[in-house]
Amino acid sequence: MAVIVILGAGMMGTALAWPFLDRGHVVRLVGTHLDDEIVASLRARRLHPKLHLDVPEGIEPYAVDELPRALEGADAVALGVSSAGVRWAGERLAPLLRPGTPVAMVSKGLEWDGSELRVLPEVFASELPEALRSTIDPVGIAGPCIAGELARRVPTTVVFTARTAEAPRAWAALAAGQYYHVFPSDDVIGVEACAALKNAYAMGIALATGMHAATGGTAGSIGFHNLEAALFAQSVFEMRALLRVLGGNPETASGLAGLGDLDVTCNGGRTGRFGHLLGLGLGPDEAVRRMQGATLECLEILRTLRAALAGYAASGRLPAGALPLAEHLARVALDGAPVFPPLERFFDPALTASLAR
Amino acid sequence: MAVIVILGAGMMGTALAWPFLDRGHVVRLVGTHLDDEIVASLRARRLHPKLHLDVPEGIEPYAVDELPRALEGADAVALGVSSAGVRWAGERLAPLLRPGTPVAMVSKGLEWDGSELRVLPEVFASELPEALRSTIDPVGIAGPCIAGELARRVPTTVVFTARTAEAPRAWAALAAGQYYHVFPSDDVIGVEACAALKNAYAMGIALATGMHAATGGTAGSIGFHNLEAALFAQSVFEMRALLRVLGGNPETASGLAGLGDLDVTCNGGRTGRFGHLLGLGLGPDEAVRRMQGATLECLEILRTLRAALAGYAASGRLPAGALPLAEHLARVALDGAPVFPPLERFFDPALTASLAR
Repeated sequence: MAVIVILGAGMMGTALAWPFLDRGHVVRLVGTHLDDEIVASLRARRLHPKLHLDVPEGIEPYAVDELPRALEGADAVALGVSSAGVRWAGERLAPLLRPGTPVAMVSKGLEWDGSELRVLPEVFASELPEALRSTIDPVGIAGPCIAGELARRVPTTVVFTARTAEAPRAWAALAAGQYYHVFPSDDVIGVEACAALKNAYAMGIALATGMHAATGGTAGSIGFHNLEAALFAQSVFEMRALLRVLGGNPETASGLAGLGDLDVTCNGGRTGRFGHLLGLGLGPDEAVRRMQGATLECLEILRTLRAALAGYAASGRLPAGALPLAEHLARVALDGAPVFPPLERFFDPALTASLAR
Repeated sequence: MAVIVILGAGMMGTALAWPFLDRGHVVRLVGTHLDDEIVASLRARRLHPKLHLDVPEGIEPYAVDELPRALEGADAVALGVSSAGVRWAGERLAPLLRPGTPVAMVSKGLEWDGSELRVLPEVFASELPEALRSTIDPVGIAGPCIAGELARRVPTTVVFTARTAEAPRAWAALAAGQYYHVFPSDDVIGVEACAALKNAYAMGIALATGMHAATGGTAGSIGFHNLEAALFAQSVFEMRALLRVLGGNPETASGLAGLGDLDVTCNGGRTGRFGHLLGLGLGPDEAVRRMQGATLECLEILRTLRAALAGYAASGRLPAGALPLAEHLARVALDGAPVFPPLERFFDPALTASLAR
């Protein structure tokens, strides 16, 4: 039996507790300063108000200021914070982590540092002091996993990735079980980039359902599935191209962490609803307003991606206009441009050729 | 203005007329002996009873015995017959086609000849006399295209493929237009194999919705999307592996003709409904009965695929058990085996490695 600390008590951080619990481990679930209501509810009634689920006894809730106590005797630490919380988590954990502590993270995002897109395990590690950093290889957890389904033990396949092969293996030994199937990958850059990019592209694919509704279509009538599939295929095409530029493996975009996660993200949740609203013809401000404060990772990643594409074009690493869908989605969601996608610029063989050189 | 003959007046054959009509061509739509009711309805009321749509004046209906007359002065011939009808079409057209007539086909399927899987353009060509065959390079039309959407001018992207670059280009010049975007490919084997395989795999992905319903889940409740995405990703993984064995380009499975067509096939239609019924726990006989006589391409392709996998294993070209999902789906849909998929055997790195050698 191991003691596992999860920092971040949102939906995904909390859902991650189930595989550990079912393997007989104890989970200390530490809320961030954004999770005070969740921790209070868990303490009062064991109810997670966002998962709409009673959590089992094996999950022990902690408030953010109890982090040092939660870490006493901990065998491993997982991060369930938002991408913006990764640096904060690094700072808070730096003085508390023992050297060699296994660290994993379900946070999804990318940072643009002015010359490179950085994946979050790297961002987290950069917050640790040098001596500690060399002993910790943070494991990224990605792949198609809706939190509410994991917490209900729906059969799930995920990817664990890190620089070394040992780190994912150690976490798989703690987590893998009957309904939680872990597939290791050594492509940290590719896996983590896909985990972030899929939010932008899933929003783009959902434009089609909104465009269908805007023509008077209803669920169950003839849809715009042909257009959706074109957007899906172009999304994977662009993810492959971008992975090559970042130094990841393009094959990752064609696998579980790429198209698998993209598929699941299209199948539910706020990203799809937001894309649908834009597809209907609403401007970004109105669409955001209708989302009633829901976190929209797609907007954050589109801002980052737009800056990165401009940077890569300036340095000659990716031709300007090479990713027409990504650029279109940024214009639609950030600038309020018309939604119709530039299909005639999709699947450009010149892009494949220029990247193969 | 060209005169284009489409042989096969089913949903896809008929829908293909729209892009040609909108480019100003005349379409002679020739029913097969299976299409007598459709032709009669088109003549009496211009209504296509399966598309539930009135067809425009530019579509001229012909009965099967009027094929010679329909071909008089025809500039190009497209096949909309079923896979089983391709050899029949070849026989019927052989004495009627002028050398060099452009031929295209939307038929989807594979034939196992005992040592190789054969794609349908090849099967069609094999029915032509040698002298004619050398002048005709049949173009395969694939990619995500639901017939009912194409006939309603939903924006659609498709792949035209042949051995030569000229043949797809000639057809694109006739068909490509505002809502019909044509992307050429020189990977006939890969594109056509994907077009057939996607029916088997889409059935497999739909098992998840049935399994969800079998646990008491309803549309809109927490789903089995994590499982669906795992099945989707493994489908593409296996299509890539199989394309390599067939001599196609694995990248095709990661593109519009592969995952694009797979995506659209999951989004509607009889294949998905049949998979759903199997996922519910119905045996194949009962599931087929409930489909009330609908054509189930997935069963045909699974029978062919099972024979091919056994053959490739016997000849050492693909390790036995290398495609665990395909083999599982054949057992479920043909033998009535339990539906739960072998997730622990998914994404086998040994398969990738063995095929890369």
